[in-house]
Amino acid sequence: MKLLIINPNSDESMTQAILSSATRFSRNNFDVSCLSTPGAPPFIDTYQDIAAAMPGMAELLHKHEADYDGFIVACHCDPNLDLMKESTDKPMVGIGEASMKIATMLGHRFSVISTDERSVPNKEALIRSYHLQDLAASVRSPAPAWADESEHNQYLLTARAAVDEDMAEVIVLGCAGMTGLDKRLESELGVPVLDGVVCALIIASGLVKYQTSTSKIRRYR
Amino acid sequence: MKLLIINPNSDESMTQAILSSATRFSRNNFDVSCLSTPGAPPFIDTYQDIAAAMPGMAELLHKHEADYDGFIVACHCDPNLDLMKESTDKPMVGIGEASMKIATMLGHRFSVISTDERSVPNKEALIRSYHLQDLAASVRSPAPAWADESEHNQYLLTARAAVDEDMAEVIVLGCAGMTGLDKRLESELGVPVLDGVVCALIIASGLVKYQTSTSKIRRYR
Amino acid sequence: MKLLIINPNSDESMTQAILSSATRFSRNNFDVSCLSTPGAPPFIDTYQDIAAAMPGMAELLHKHEADYDGFIVACHCDPNLDLMKESTDKPMVGIGEASMKIATMLGHRFSVISTDERSVPNKEALIRSYHLQDLAASVRSPAPAWADESEHNQYLLTARAAVDEDMAEVIVLGCAGMTGLDKRLESELGVPVLDGVVCALIIASGLVKYQTSTSKIRRYR
Amino acid sequence: MKLLIINPNSDESMTQAILSSATRFSRNNFDVSCLSTPGAPPFIDTYQDIAAAMPGMAELLHKHEADYDGFIVACHCDPNLDLMKESTDKPMVGIGEASMKIATMLGHRFSVISTDERSVPNKEALIRSYHLQDLAASVRSPAPAWADESEHNQYLLTARAAVDEDMAEVIVLGCAGMTGLDKRLESELGVPVLDGVVCALIIASGLVKYQTSTSKIRRYR
Amino acid sequence: MKLLIINPNSDESMTQAILSSATRFSRNNFDVSCLSTPGAPPFIDTYQDIAAAMPGMAELLHKHEADYDGFIVACHCDPNLDLMKESTDKPMVGIGEASMKIATMLGHRFSVISTDERSVPNKEALIRSYHLQDLAASVRSPAPAWADESEHNQYLLTARAAVDEDMAEVIVLGCAGMTGLDKRLESELGVPVLDGVVCALIIASGLVKYQTSTSKIRRYR
Amino acid sequence: MKLLIINPNSDESMTQAILSSATRFSRNNFDVSCLSTPGAPPFIDTYQDIAAAMPGMAELLHKHEADYDGFIVACHCDPNLDLMKESTDKPMVGIGEASMKIATMLGHRFSVISTDERSVPNKEALIRSYHLQDLAASVRSPAPAWADESEHNQYLLTARAAVDEDMAEVIVLGCAGMTGLDKRLESELGVPVLDGVVCALIIASGLVKYQTSTSKIRRYR
Repeated sequence: MKLLIINPNSDESMTQAILSSATRFSRNNFDVSCLSTPGAPPFIDTYQDIAAAMPGMAELLHKHEADYDGFIVACHCDPNLDLMKESTDKPMVGIGEASMKIATMLGHRFSVISTDERSVPNKEALIRSYHLQDLAASVRSPAPAWADESEHNQYLLTARAAVDEDMAEVIVLGCAGMTGLDKRLESELGVPVLDGVVCALIIASGLVKYQTSTSKIRRYR
Repeated sequence: MKLLIINPNSDESMTQAILSSATRFSRNNFDVSCLSTPGAPPFIDTYQDIAAAMPGMAELLHKHEADYDGFIVACHCDPNLDLMKESTDKPMVGIGEASMKIATMLGHRFSVISTDERSVPNKEALIRSYHLQDLAASVRSPAPAWADESEHNQYLLTARAAVDEDMAEVIVLGCAGMTGLDKRLESELGVPVLDGVVCALIIASGLVKYQTSTSKIRRYR
Repeated sequence: MKLLIINPNSDESMTQAILSSATRFSRNNFDVSCLSTPGAPPFIDTYQDIAAAMPGMAELLHKHEADYDGFIVACHCDPNLDLMKESTDKPMVGIGEASMKIATMLGHRFSVISTDERSVPNKEALIRSYHLQDLAASVRSPAPAWADESEHNQYLLTARAAVDEDMAEVIVLGCAGMTGLDKRLESELGVPVLDGVVCALIIASGLVKYQTSTSKIRRYR
Repeated sequence: MKLLIINPNSDESMTQAILSSATRFSRNNFDVSCLSTPGAPPFIDTYQDIAAAMPGMAELLHKHEADYDGFIVACHCDPNLDLMKESTDKPMVGIGEASMKIATMLGHRFSVISTDERSVPNKEALIRSYHLQDLAASVRSPAPAWADESEHNQYLLTARAAVDEDMAEVIVLGCAGMTGLDKRLESELGVPVLDGVVCALIIASGLVKYQTSTSKIRRYR
Repeated sequence: MKLLIINPNSDESMTQAILSSATRFSRNNFDVSCLSTPGAPPFIDTYQDIAAAMPGMAELLHKHEADYDGFIVACHCDPNLDLMKESTDKPMVGIGEASMKIATMLGHRFSVISTDERSVPNKEALIRSYHLQDLAASVRSPAPAWADESEHNQYLLTARAAVDEDMAEVIVLGCAGMTGLDKRLESELGVPVLDGVVCALIIASGLVKYQTSTSKIRRYR
Repeated sequence: MKLLIINPNSDESMTQAILSSATRFSRNNFDVSCLSTPGAPPFIDTYQDIAAAMPGMAELLHKHEADYDGFIVACHCDPNLDLMKESTDKPMVGIGEASMKIATMLGHRFSVISTDERSVPNKEALIRSYHLQDLAASVRSPAPAWADESEHNQYLLTARAAVDEDMAEVIVLGCAGMTGLDKRLESELGVPVLDGVVCALIIASGLVKYQTSTSKIRRYR
């Protein structure tokens, strides 16, 4: 089995970090590649970023569709995911969708840790589009008061506030760029911390093995 | 990796059918066993059946917890699943929860095919407990008028009505006893048909591999 | 009319307290008894406690069904209530369900006062299972900072925070063990405070008098 | 204990029918009176009818508030109920609210039988205002094709369609004018059939006995 | 085109303020009048105030229906709006409904600024009756601690808290008496601030020009 | 005031039809233009169509932003509307959003008439993204059995089924290509029929006149 992870941005170091997490998880069960999106911005934050990433994502899919058994979109806002699901008969999994839906199986409510306050409403809209709003405790970004802390500490404080104040029982890392932070945060927090890249690999590899995929009868025909 | 599937009823032939589907899916990726529940009724339909299965399910878990890496409850009404999640630190997955949540990743709305009308409200209550009610097109059981058809045809007609009249895009087999019907129905219907046993294996094996499990901070402590 | 209150735990002093509240309310309108559940744990908190109480609750119902006109389950998490409703044709009322639904008739939103933080998500899940989530202001337990206060004061402070900060207009006592605290808290808070035991007696005695009971057509057949 | 039932319309024969049902239920537990509303229209159907009934309802309450312990508004659309709750410190119960909330304790979903199609959306809006929309199977009025049937048969056919096609498990009589039809329909249908007048008496007499009433802290101050 | 704004209270100075805002907006596109409601209380806060305003509102409509092309109810709790929509075939717009629905087109979530805490639950009930509860960040009234601030500052602080703490992106002025505060607050806050009077004029004048109006088939017949 | 309507497809005849409806409505109140989208497909149906229209829509906005006071996206699936709102400080209105939200002010529930069954789930997803799902009676497309009827009759039969069977009280034309059908259908059906182009003009011209626009604080910054 061969899976392709599409990093919707053009940041090669993030692509390498994603690939590193992915290969650590896949071990020798399946092959996995990760590609940056040509022409995409270095970071996906706004609707304009999503639009700018679109042509390159479509191009990557078109070029590599025959060579892989399944695909992953590795940005936690699941940019252009409806389009990508529609554009192939093979399994197409978003790291936002996969991680938040797996989170609902592991505890009462999950919180998403986001990089900045600006993306909070967009993530809330995404959560609602998946009908998960009543299972989400909160979307949280680091407080401005913590600006002097290390990045790790900022996320730790943010996640701890979600667990203590918002009653979250599971933490979802809300950015592909946070890949690899899961296990250290998990041990510090005492609750599951989910890396979207790994969650998407669980679903995508499972669907490939099960030989099933997106329904093509109406919405994604 | 070793997974144990707990069949909450005492029907040994159903246990064998579940095991057969499970081993066909697992291939050589992981080991899987399936055990009938001692003292349980032959079929789980009512709340009394669920209660009657409880002591045996708890006993199976207690006896085998150390020997397996993850567990599956293989009845589509997810009987005693909250109890089972609370009772172990290892991954515990219900076939109802896993199949319906995976279904939401594959199409606009899913329908559950149930064995009989009596269980429809119970399945609706389960769907709601997972917050999936707006993603479910319907829960359907074979119409009395089809009583002379073969069992396969009854389920086919039921699923087709769900696809055509309720606008379902994915079909979920609503009983562990339907295991193995997925691929033939899928080819006849032209939409994904999900076997809960396989879906639960995807999630359970993924969680074991990811070394994460149920949050133990509050609800399932 | 004879009503039996089943205390799902084995704490005889709680049974006496419940009976005392019940007889104070019933006066000479109907007879009421209360029994502890044999084999049950002393307090119902976890899913394991609920499971451990189940055989004794079923036994109590079986043994006394013919002698009473209606039944009450007197633990605010309504343990095994679906099973109990299914197991008799006579009225079966949970103190959680009765008190929260009556609360919705008395004000804009209600809050449930719970004994400890651990049970908050479980109570939220119960509230949701009754479709009451948008009518509930909050589920609150005493803050750790109040540990030196008397038990009464802890509940008073908790309820006041619910009224002032969460905008609750009605308080529901979230544990049968709080029975009898209602009127003093009510006079201190200035809002209705509901004891689930009394609320369940209102509903159960009313159903018996009305000669109606649980529908036996599908879900509770 | 003395309860006053306010019939919001001016139809004296309906007032007598309501009183007859009420006294049959109350037996010797409490006293109950029923008064027609002066100046109100003979039937409450439109928002104009509700407005026209308002001054008379307020007048009845003002005139009789001191003489009774609790009050019931006996029209299934609960006309001016928020106003009436606000206007007295004593228990004020609507037959729509009481019957639909008790219905939710007796089965999976309830249906309301309405006199005519025009009132269906208004009843749906009422159901939603009580947050009961997901617990209601349907609001149904007799089909035009049944116009030649007796009134009883029309309601029977309507209720049967609700049970069979909409999966209702409990039937709520959606008009005070249907009072007294409950037990015959119940025996014909095999599911509970609730008369709002009786349901409101259960709640109102219970609240009076419990010495609690509407919260006066904010919404109904 | 001639529009009549009905101020449901009897405060002539508020009527003048509303008219002033309305004529500033209408410029020479349409004619607009505003009338106080005879017999109404000076301020609409409680359900009794709404009831007291009803006869005068109905009288105003009856008297002036032929002379105007469309009507506006200018109190943010939309008092008697269902009645008013039912009572005329011409467009009838509430400032609460119009402003909150336009707010949803301008940002992720809106907050309503209310004059006092008592009206918060009533406004929440109104928001829910329009199915807007998931689009509303909060309903907020000035904190008691700000009592020494100017009225303008109190609303500014309230709105700022809604933007910063509740993540509101649009502010809705929750009282016709706040008319005219929109543009100064907008420049101070940096987010859209909506005056219900203007929003209702946008909708009402648009409906008149489009020659469409309330559906008269069932609910408002 | 100058408004630009962006027709997201490249069908010049549809552009002319939209412009014709728009100028008929605008009369001499404001200037309105309509442009086809360069490089877009002739009809917007799939997610690929939406993606293919995106660069041309962005280009149109960029090129003409300075020359117009407000903008309308004239395809009923509101393609790329979040992107367009983010990309300008001036009012940006979608015909889907405007028409469905105005519909909710005119009756109990609305139905959307769609061109074909394939687009039904996509429109349902759109309705949900605006939180309108409980206010929508249905999304309906012409039945295959009506294929021999004229296009007008097919839409008439579809709308009538929505009114009679789904209890719709307002009809929304679910495609910009249906522009101009509103008034004839309205007279045949007896309920309001809304043309999205006109509805968007009401909102956009109102916002321009009110000098307010999309909030730029977070989601659309």
